[in-house]
Amino acid sequence: MKINKDTNILIVGLGLIGGSYARGFSKAGYRIKAIDTDQGAIDYALERGIICAGTSKLDRSMIEAADVVIFALYPHIFREWIEKNQWYLKSGAVITDVTGVKGGLVRYIQSILRDDCEYIAAHPMAGCEKLGIEHSDEKIFYGANYIVVPTEKNSEEAKELCRQIGQILNFARISELSPEDHDEMIGFVSQLTHCIAMSLMTCDHTENLEDYTGDSFRDLTRIARIDETMWSELFLANKDALLHQMKLFTMEFSKLERMLMEGDKEGIKDMMRRSTARRKLFDKEVATDEHGV
Amino acid sequence: MKINKDTNILIVGLGLIGGSYARGFSKAGYRIKAIDTDQGAIDYALERGIICAGTSKLDRSMIEAADVVIFALYPHIFREWIEKNQWYLKSGAVITDVTGVKGGLVRYIQSILRDDCEYIAAHPMAGCEKLGIEHSDEKIFYGANYIVVPTEKNSEEAKELCRQIGQILNFARISELSPEDHDEMIGFVSQLTHCIAMSLMTCDHTENLEDYTGDSFRDLTRIARIDETMWSELFLANKDALLHQMKLFTMEFSKLERMLMEGDKEGIKDMMRRSTARRKLFDKEVATDEHGV
Repeated sequence: MKINKDTNILIVGLGLIGGSYARGFSKAGYRIKAIDTDQGAIDYALERGIICAGTSKLDRSMIEAADVVIFALYPHIFREWIEKNQWYLKSGAVITDVTGVKGGLVRYIQSILRDDCEYIAAHPMAGCEKLGIEHSDEKIFYGANYIVVPTEKNSEEAKELCRQIGQILNFARISELSPEDHDEMIGFVSQLTHCIAMSLMTCDHTENLEDYTGDSFRDLTRIARIDETMWSELFLANKDALLHQMKLFTMEFSKLERMLMEGDKEGIKDMMRRSTARRKLFDKEVATDEHGV
Repeated sequence: MKINKDTNILIVGLGLIGGSYARGFSKAGYRIKAIDTDQGAIDYALERGIICAGTSKLDRSMIEAADVVIFALYPHIFREWIEKNQWYLKSGAVITDVTGVKGGLVRYIQSILRDDCEYIAAHPMAGCEKLGIEHSDEKIFYGANYIVVPTEKNSEEAKELCRQIGQILNFARISELSPEDHDEMIGFVSQLTHCIAMSLMTCDHTENLEDYTGDSFRDLTRIARIDETMWSELFLANKDALLHQMKLFTMEFSKLERMLMEGDKEGIKDMMRRSTARRKLFDKEVATDEHGV
């Protein structure tokens, strides 16, 4: 199956990410339906033409009609939804998701899903510290990474369809990782960074610190505004990988602390040089450096 | 003394910050002279009209003519310059600086400076991960903090002149802190953040990590590109305050690690809520939230 303008696409969960998916698909000329328990979110999307149909009910006929279903829910709600409602899916439907941790989830859902449907996991690495469809914006995907997370159970066709979603939504880079590699990587680049930002934000209680804050501090704590329901669930779902990454970070941080204590200027400079060299690899667009030096 | 269009202003050190000062003053209609050991930097600034005169020599007459001298040098070079060359200063000259750590420096310079000159310390909290006058830009000061760092030795007049520099350069907020309070604050909002960014950048050696990086990671490591000569000096000059801040951070980070280990979801959520609430205070312009929700 390839997605075309006649493909019946259903999004379940119309929050920030589900809403941004809906906007992206609609802008690209696809017709999107949506289910969300919050009628307000559905009304918001209908009024603005973000979706062409939607409901806050468990509309059996809407589910049965869908060729592709995209779940943009909290992990445990996604799991429960499949457990309870998978029998309404059309035979041959492909389902995918946007969940941030894959380990337990992907293999579990694949193990309980009907044989005549296929679940291919995906992770759009984009977001925003604000929640809800009112903050949705298809542009959060431009320049971002989209990761297809297949297992040995997935067909080439489903992987191809999943990549196609990333293309339609204009992600900058589409790649593929196993659930295990995905979770290890996420433990580092996303979860560890949130742990750091939170700790930095809560470790000092000085009043009026905001009067003296430079951009460094703002950059490092932007993600300290964090949705506790979602992220506590994601952290615990990826506990082992995250704890491992926290340990690596702590060891490195302690090394720096020790060098400072000992006045080891050369050691500190060496670490700074390595940090600078490695950071350069992560620049989004080296070529467009405006100063051109 | 108040700065006016006839005030003879000399900048010593024409790098990123010195160059940005020169640009800001020139744009505001002041005539700026500069000394830098690098003739290339002087030529660059002269060709672009960033300064009206400049030299890479220790030009005695240029120093003698200056009413206000702004030092934008590495701390130890600033110290050496004053030790060696203060005798060339005009009687009554006010000198100021841009140095990032104040503790040892300010009181030392004040103790050795001639009685007929006054040194008032300042810290423009702005920068850029790139160095040199080619990257200078007066706009790095817009929206930024400018801190006057007086001691009991400073006159009201010098403080006023120092504030005026912040105003001419269009800093968003001008405040005053003692050298000790300044260094404690800087240990937290600037140095600790750089320590974290460096440690994060160097703790994981996975190849091709840049393919999977989201904006969180980029934000947290922007400042991991760090000038080792400058920053190793600043870290060591503020060793005690920085080590204290590193300890507070480590304690908070370990607390989170422990909650994760124990699966303490409520504890993690509580920390996330505190983090979110505190981070809101640091938003630059709450009023212009474009979504208006």
